[in-house]
Amino acid sequence: MDQKISFDIAKTDGRARTGVLKTPKGDIRTPAFMPVGTAATVKAMMPENVRATGADILLGNTYHLMLRPGAERIHNLGGLHRFMNWDRPILTDSGGYQVMSLTDLRKLTEEGVKFKSHIDGAEYNLTPERSMEIQRLLGSDIVMSFDECTPFPATEKQAKDSMDLSMRWAQRSRDAFGDRPGYALFGIQQGSTFKEMRAESADKLMNIGFDGYAVGGLAVGEGQELMFEVLDYAPEQLPKDKPRYLMGVGKPDDIVGAVQRGIDMFDCVLPSRSGRTGQAQTRMGAINLRNARHRDDPRPLDENCTCPTCQNYSRAYLHHVHRAGEIISSMLLTWHNLHYYQELMQGLRDAIAAEQLDAFVANFHAIRAVGDIEPL
Amino acid sequence: MDQKISFDIAKTDGRARTGVLKTPKGDIRTPAFMPVGTAATVKAMMPENVRATGADILLGNTYHLMLRPGAERIHNLGGLHRFMNWDRPILTDSGGYQVMSLTDLRKLTEEGVKFKSHIDGAEYNLTPERSMEIQRLLGSDIVMSFDECTPFPATEKQAKDSMDLSMRWAQRSRDAFGDRPGYALFGIQQGSTFKEMRAESADKLMNIGFDGYAVGGLAVGEGQELMFEVLDYAPEQLPKDKPRYLMGVGKPDDIVGAVQRGIDMFDCVLPSRSGRTGQAQTRMGAINLRNARHRDDPRPLDENCTCPTCQNYSRAYLHHVHRAGEIISSMLLTWHNLHYYQELMQGLRDAIAAEQLDAFVANFHAIRAVGDIEPL
Ligand SMILES: [Zn+2]
Ligand SMILES: [Zn+2]
Repeated sequence: MDQKISFDIAKTDGRARTGVLKTPKGDIRTPAFMPVGTAATVKAMMPENVRATGADILLGNTYHLMLRPGAERIHNLGGLHRFMNWDRPILTDSGGYQVMSLTDLRKLTEEGVKFKSHIDGAEYNLTPERSMEIQRLLGSDIVMSFDECTPFPATEKQAKDSMDLSMRWAQRSRDAFGDRPGYALFGIQQGSTFKEMRAESADKLMNIGFDGYAVGGLAVGEGQELMFEVLDYAPEQLPKDKPRYLMGVGKPDDIVGAVQRGIDMFDCVLPSRSGRTGQAQTRMGAINLRNARHRDDPRPLDENCTCPTCQNYSRAYLHHVHRAGEIISSMLLTWHNLHYYQELMQGLRDAIAAEQLDAFVANFHAIRAVGDIEPL
Repeated sequence: MDQKISFDIAKTDGRARTGVLKTPKGDIRTPAFMPVGTAATVKAMMPENVRATGADILLGNTYHLMLRPGAERIHNLGGLHRFMNWDRPILTDSGGYQVMSLTDLRKLTEEGVKFKSHIDGAEYNLTPERSMEIQRLLGSDIVMSFDECTPFPATEKQAKDSMDLSMRWAQRSRDAFGDRPGYALFGIQQGSTFKEMRAESADKLMNIGFDGYAVGGLAVGEGQELMFEVLDYAPEQLPKDKPRYLMGVGKPDDIVGAVQRGIDMFDCVLPSRSGRTGQAQTRMGAINLRNARHRDDPRPLDENCTCPTCQNYSRAYLHHVHRAGEIISSMLLTWHNLHYYQELMQGLRDAIAAEQLDAFVANFHAIRAVGDIEPL
């Protein structure tokens, strides 16, 4: 087993890139979408089926896992991979994002964040050093530095103070992570929607040196237009030869636009969360199975989709089991949605490899513009 | 495809029998356990995985399906098999049992039962004729006659009146079912805990003539001891050469005792329902995964079990996902429980075939008497 992490870009098309992030636990084909396994499970899915959709890597949430069942417990049980029955790469976030969102329950200092658990009110102290320790205990393959996700909107002063803090925490994360062959540490660029500040953050991160770089502080309410504006410059401020990760993104058209702008990695709860509320993500756009138009419809969600849901079940069945509150509704829609996301990523990778990304994207939007098939 | 239903008993051991109920949609190995797919899904399971546990046949609920999505709708969508993606045999109950339990919402007459839907209050009229029609529309392979499940306890007069009504309904069910090659109609014996009344009911049913016979009116609160007392005579009052079905039973030790007394078919929600509440059914008895003793336990539920849950997950993981309310908890425990039930049925079939049933049953009870493994 090769103990090194490496990133090879096989091909570029415009600013978009396709390649492979190699890890000892397996290759991650980029651009990559990482399904979210918050509490050591991708909700409503067996991990072997997540893999079957084409996922090379999962994301785990430090915040949730540190509270329940606890990082030390997972470590004693053999690590997160064994615990959740997933032997391929896992990326964990730093816990910072979720902790910061506990507005009333947390106290932010230079040292880190003190907060109370939303589960039982117990007190915790999360610092760059503790975040690195937790992610090591979990056995995460790609560790994220501890940072403050700058809220949106932010004044220039707020954004600068926040970015500076994140850069000091980035250095502490790097120091605490140490030298761990086969494991990667990613830095996170901040700077809100300010181009020069994003450049400054990128420079500071590069001076520290990371195995990959995330564009942080986006998808926090700024909207797609402004996000794309930032993505028109932010990724290119980061090293060309390292993977670039856009955290928490996103809808299919967000992903397509971000790939066009040079992003290599994504994670988002949308395909699994929307599956649990009866929403299917398809080539034609989002489809709400709760709608009565599907009640007598014997057709699959998408006749061109090869997922088990579309191969074996009608819209009428999906409508029925969602209305009846049956667990299989979440199982089937999550499976389809994750399949669709991975198929989209494969389409993007193939298009970039063939230098046909523009045509692929035009087709992507054309099919969505037509929308869902007509009701019967 | 053979269009006939036939029942071949390969071997007997005492009163117990093992054989095959052959249907055009596949063989049903007896003694058989039928997982319950109430609303066109075995809750928290993909049907191909239900099959993988060893299930030859599923049970569907007429009451639930007639209300939502509706029998005519399922018929128009190609029948229940296609709707729920299960191409093997399906047995449906008559709807009577659930309707009778709507004590405040139903009116019982000679004609049938008028009742209001628990979902939207709409009025329905369920009769023997309508029950046969619904089960035909669903495409059920084994149809149950419409009857009244006599409540327990019942006076002799109550039991007699109820049994007589059920026998008149049995004749109407038989007449309405008609001649349908490849499909079976089962009659249901009533008579509460009165031996002579059970014999009278059996005689009336045999005069009408059915493809199989259920022992009805048990597992309604009388307790295992009294149930076994009835099973000491009731099955033998029914034809030797037809399958005997004990409706709604049961716990593993109920099933073992009933097989010893000549029962061939069972259905019960216990393995799926208890899986959703964190309870595992195992060789050692029921295990509550919610219990804190499992929190740090790296061992599988049952080291001798070959199900995916026991092969891939620790008790600690099952404890965690149950506590966290994750859907995978229901998925994994239901899978294990259904696997255990089918393994138990296979064990019973093999033991009868080898004329070793007494030894098998002694071992079954001995392992349960020891109970769960010691905590770590
Ligand atoms: Zn699909
Ligand atoms: Zn098992």
